[in-house]
Order: sequence, then C-alpha cells, then structure tokens
Amino acid sequence: MDIKKIGSSVTAPAGFKALGMHCGIKKTKKDLGLIYSSRPALCSAFFTTNALKSAHIQLDKMHLNKSSCISAIVVNSGNANCCTGRRGFLDALAMAEETAKKFNLKTEEVLVASTGIIGQPLPVKKIKASISKFPALVNRNGAGDFAQSILTTDKKNKEIAVSVDIGGRAVKIGGAAKGAGMINPCLATTLMFITTDAVISKESLKKSSRTALDNSLHLITVDGDMSPNDSLFILANGCAENKIIQAKGRDFDAFCGALCYVCRELAKMLVKDAEGATKFAAIYVKRAKTKQQAENIASGLANSLLFKSMLHGADPNWGRIVSGAGSADKKLDMNKLDVYIGNKKAFADGEPVNVKKSILRKILLRKEIEITIDLKSGAYKAEKYTCDLSSEYVKINSAYRT
Amino acid sequence: MDIKKIGSSVTAPAGFKALGMHCGIKKTKKDLGLIYSSRPALCSAFFTTNALKSAHIQLDKMHLNKSSCISAIVVNSGNANCCTGRRGFLDALAMAEETAKKFNLKTEEVLVASTGIIGQPLPVKKIKASISKFPALVNRNGAGDFAQSILTTDKKNKEIAVSVDIGGRAVKIGGAAKGAGMINPCLATTLMFITTDAVISKESLKKSSRTALDNSLHLITVDGDMSPNDSLFILANGCAENKIIQAKGRDFDAFCGALCYVCRELAKMLVKDAEGATKFAAIYVKRAKTKQQAENIASGLANSLLFKSMLHGADPNWGRIVSGAGSADKKLDMNKLDVYIGNKKAFADGEPVNVKKSILRKILLRKEIEITIDLKSGAYKAEKYTCDLSSEYVKINSAYRT
Repeated sequence: MDIKKIGSSVTAPAGFKALGMHCGIKKTKKDLGLIYSSRPALCSAFFTTNALKSAHIQLDKMHLNKSSCISAIVVNSGNANCCTGRRGFLDALAMAEETAKKFNLKTEEVLVASTGIIGQPLPVKKIKASISKFPALVNRNGAGDFAQSILTTDKKNKEIAVSVDIGGRAVKIGGAAKGAGMINPCLATTLMFITTDAVISKESLKKSSRTALDNSLHLITVDGDMSPNDSLFILANGCAENKIIQAKGRDFDAFCGALCYVCRELAKMLVKDAEGATKFAAIYVKRAKTKQQAENIASGLANSLLFKSMLHGADPNWGRIVSGAGSADKKLDMNKLDVYIGNKKAFADGEPVNVKKSILRKILLRKEIEITIDLKSGAYKAEKYTCDLSSEYVKINSAYRT
Repeated sequence: MDIKKIGSSVTAPAGFKALGMHCGIKKTKKDLGLIYSSRPALCSAFFTTNALKSAHIQLDKMHLNKSSCISAIVVNSGNANCCTGRRGFLDALAMAEETAKKFNLKTEEVLVASTGIIGQPLPVKKIKASISKFPALVNRNGAGDFAQSILTTDKKNKEIAVSVDIGGRAVKIGGAAKGAGMINPCLATTLMFITTDAVISKESLKKSSRTALDNSLHLITVDGDMSPNDSLFILANGCAENKIIQAKGRDFDAFCGALCYVCRELAKMLVKDAEGATKFAAIYVKRAKTKQQAENIASGLANSLLFKSMLHGADPNWGRIVSGAGSADKKLDMNKLDVYIGNKKAFADGEPVNVKKSILRKILLRKEIEITIDLKSGAYKAEKYTCDLSSEYVKINSAYRT
C-alpha cells in the first residue's frame, strides 16, 4: 500500500476549509472551531456508549437521521455541554442554527461537538456572536487553528494528513483529534475529525470507518474513564473525483488502509499527549484461546494502576504484569505464560527468568515500550496502547476547575 | 445486638498466642509473624481469585484438604513468594515444616501466608533460623507485634477485638489485617487474620465467614488491582466453651453480626490507610433495578481515576460522578438520576441542581465523605468504600523496589 504523508490536516483534502478562534469560554486560548465542506459530504459518525450523552450527541443523531449529507461541524472546547438538561440541547441547536444561517445551509446539515467541563451551562451568546464572523474567517489554511481550538488539557495539536492513490487519482485523508483524559474507548473516544475528498459509496464509508475505529481509538486507554462526549466524525465530500470506491476490492483496501493509518496515528498521539503521560506503552497479547481472552488481558493490563505506576518509575517489577494478566483472566494457565519487556523475556512457563534487572530497567527507561504476553494457548491476539500514571495526572485532575 | 469492643486483637480470644519479629527480609522492620492456638481450631479460609496464586495459597489449599483443624499460621512480609515457581512452593512448605517441628504439630496443621514484592525468591534460611526461636517468643501479648510484622506499605497496624454474648458466655473475636495497595476484592483481598474462641459448627463458621467477607472486604477498593496473595483466615478454637453455635438462630445471628463488624472495621482501616490515601469515601447506590446494576455503578465509581482525583482535590466536579455512573451502566436512565454529595443534592432527574459550589466543596474537604446515587428505578442497593488518588500513590508504586 502506498500511503504518503503530506502537510496540513483536515483541510488537506480538496473542498474543505476550517478555522479556529477565541470566543470567550476559555480565558485567552482558542475555544471555537469549524470544519466546512464546499460540497455536502457523506458522514460516518460514532458516539460514546456512556449512558450519559452530551447535548451535542443527541442533536447530531437527529441531524444524521434527517440529512444524508453534512456541510459543517462547529466545535467548542472548554465546556462539554453535558448534564445541562433541556437548556443544553437548545444551546447545541442554537450553535447549529447560527452556523447554518451564516452559510445558507439547512440546520440538519450542521453537526455540533463540545468538549470540556461537565455540568456548566454554555455561554451561547458569546458563541453565537463569534459564529457570525465564521464566513469571513474560514479558509484553506485554517486546519492548524482548528486543531488548536478543540484542545482541553492537551499540550499539542494532533493533526495528520495522507495521500493515497485510488485508481490513478490522489485521494487525501486529513484528521485532527483531542485527548487528553477520560479516555477508555468504547465505540469511540474523545473528539476526532476526519476529512477526505474521496468519492465513496455510503456502504464503503461505513465499513472502512468501522475498521478504522476498531484499529485506532479502540486500541487506546489513558485512565479507564469513558467520556460522555466521545465522538468520531468522518466526512467524505467527493472532491477528488476518483472512481467511486465500492465496499470490496483494491480501491477499498487502499482507502481503508489509509483511513486506518490516519486514525491510528491520531490515536497514538492522544496517548502520547495524555494527561500527565511521560511514556507510551504498546501491550501485545499473543496466542490466546479466544479473542475475548486476548482483549481482556490487554485491556486489564493497560488500565492497571500498578502497571502504569511501574512504567512511570521504570521499575522492572514484572510480577505486576503477571499478576495483572491473572487478574484479568481468572482461568489463565500460568504454567504456559511468557512475559517480555521489550525483547527481553522476564517470565517463562510460569517461572521467573534469570535476567538482570539493570537490563530490564534500561528498556523501561525508554519513551516507548513494548510489553508482550504470550499465552501459548491458541491463535488469537490483541493489542492496546497506554501511558504511564504520573503525579501530574493527579495534579491535573484534582484541580480541574479550581 | 450487644457487641463490645475490647483491647488487643488476635490474642484477645482465649487459647491464642502470637508473635512478630525481624528475620531479615526487610532491613530493620518486623517481617515474620505467627498466630498459634493451644487447641486445634476450625478454619475457614478464602483466597484470591486471581489466576496467578502465591505459593502459600497452593500449599494452604493442600493443608486445608488434609486437615480439619489448624494450629498455627506463619506469615512473612516483604516478599510475596509469588511467581517463584517450584522453588517458591518448596520454600512455603519449609516454613510450615519448620513451624510444625518446633510445636510438635503435623505439617498440615500449619498454614503459611506471604505478602510483599512479587517474583523474588524467599530468603528461606533466614526465615527457618527465626522460626527456631518461635516457641520461646510466642505469647498472649504478641498481637501488636504480629499486626506489625505483616505490614508492607501500610502506615499503621490494623487491629480490633470484640466480645459478644453467646448463650450467657462471652465469646471473643479478634482480627488483624494488612493493606495497602493492589486492593480490589474478589473473594478476598490482602491478608486478614481473624481468631475466635467460639465453639461453632463447621457449617456455621463457613456460613458466617462468607457473610462477613461479603460485608467487609468485598465492599472496598483502593486501585482496582487484585493481588495474587489475597487471603482471609478465620480460626475458631472453641476455648470459650459456649454452647455450640449452629447455622441458624439467635446465637448464630449474634456471632455472625460480631464477625461482620470485626471484618468490616478492618476493611475500612485498609481503605483509610491505603497507599497515598488522604480521604475515605463511602459510595451508596440506591433503588437500582437489579443487584448487578447497583454493584456495577458502585464499583465503577469507586475505581474511577477521575472521581478519585476529584476527591483528592475536593473539587465539586459532580459531572464526573454522573459520567462514571453512565459509563458503568450503559443503559442507565439518566432522567431519573439523583446524585448527592454528603447530604446535598447536586443533580436531580437528569438536570443540574442550583447548589453553591462552595457548599459542595466544604463537604468534599472532609476526611470522610458520602456519595449517594439514587436511580429511582427499583429496590436494590450496593455500597462501596474507596479512597482518593494522590501523587503519593504514584510515588509509592513507581519506586517500589528502587
């Protein structure tokens, strides 16, 4: 597959414009953004499975039911518009209506997203005043500002764009996302926006989106806490004018591969810039009896506070990995278990291996670490990306609003 | 029920002696302890459900199968004797054999327990040398030393003893336990030792032990990490010479009530002295549709890093409680949900309540906090005890062995 990384992010695909600005929810940082497509785009969207759902998700679901194409997504950060009752829904609707008015769209062609603190009313007047300036501000170079405007406790923009050849035409896929806590994907996590100029059938877009989600956001965890605002939006506006991508064949594989790559790179950026994170760990579970067993063990370890603390201190306390695996699967056959830190075996067939702690410690001092758990019991595998647990995480989350 | 708190702990019941000493696993602190019963005692024991099981658990299960009565439990701290393979099992056996020899017991009358770091071989020579001094050291005043000898990252001894009237005779129950991390009970957590001089049938002991377990250790969590060494031992030596307690009736209720009280108080001590903990929170879920729903929501919240960080900072960010509940039960009816911080309602029928943040903050600044989640959907309830997440927890667990 020939995936080429290119510059920019959500405005790299033809026909997309964006902006990011300050509207007054945050003190001085950008807190309002827009993605706009000059041609109405097919949209594939995934939302949190938390029973608590942000107002924007209730609105977006209605709009996606009414309209087959989407032209704009308006996003605010600094306020989740969640647990805000009836007023919250009306505020989200007002954001969509105001944006629609300014661009001569139907309201249902506009989606809304919010991220930030839960339970605070949205300062909707300030937001509406800023939306009135959107048409003058939106442009082909606005991707960086957009990526910045959606951040909360993130330290960096998370952006990427690639180009992939589909039947002789360069199709582009761009994306931006935000983290940085309350991350434990189930269906979708955090906010992620993907744009593409591909011409693609609705079925293919859905199928490839689902694959991309499973191979990106569903692989990561930061703290095991699932946000009520989690949303992934994938917009395809067809401006690349390639031959339509159907749900099978080489073109589909090329597009799906590129989409997976974009989503996975963004997902990794989320983990690397997670609240308080100083290290990135990839956990690989191999040769499990069932997919579920592999998943349970990978997830269990990725969310273990003791494992994450051990990563933080580069402490070669591999017993916590074995214990974490046994806790995640009570029926695990310990006598077959092998554990690797980096490429060094620390535990084999239920017995400790004679390996120097200084060697393991050296591996754990790296910024990126691989942990492999080989169950030697079957043909299934799973992987999960996580980060360390630091005092900084506690600091950020114990004083979020004060 | 008339439960009277009395002095001492595991040696408060008649016929029990104990000791705690330094044998050389730790640098200077006590690291070896013994509970000894002059009359062989009925024993009810519960072990971790982690697939990884410490060597002592494998040995104890064998001994409990072979012998109907137990006369001694020998315990070391500072080393879990876990992930230590065949050698670990032989080391645990050597501890039991040496103790049996010194007290003229059958090996299977001796149980062993270990707690501390995983994956290190036990310094069994040092331990055996110290066991040879046991007969000279064990005594009726050794309970405090014993409680100290089982600690790892705990800051304080966890001890209690009560007296309860059973058919005109004072029956005593004593207990000691250790925490302080890797605490997420499933069957049993941590090490807990209970002694009683009650005359009791095997069936009654089992039934009351199970009830006590469900109402104590199963209610607490510190970090969601389950230890492979978790063990609860309840010894009943019959020295009180009361009329035998059968599995029903007033005597059973009195005994079971006292046992539950002892275990629950010890469990609360574990949470209060948990690694890095500065606050204790009781979570009550009320009027759930099913027991499972109540349990899931209480456990989910008790283990939420964001909730625990919020507790730490006394941050009245109640949206995290609502989000935690919705994440723990994806089908939760949010429109019926009420959330209380202390006695103040913060969220009602899916809408925020107009309550001053300063009032909620004042409640959250207390050392002990009650959170109530009322689902208004049924007749089931659950409770869970947890602590805050502090930078200290990370500090302790990122540098455990260094």
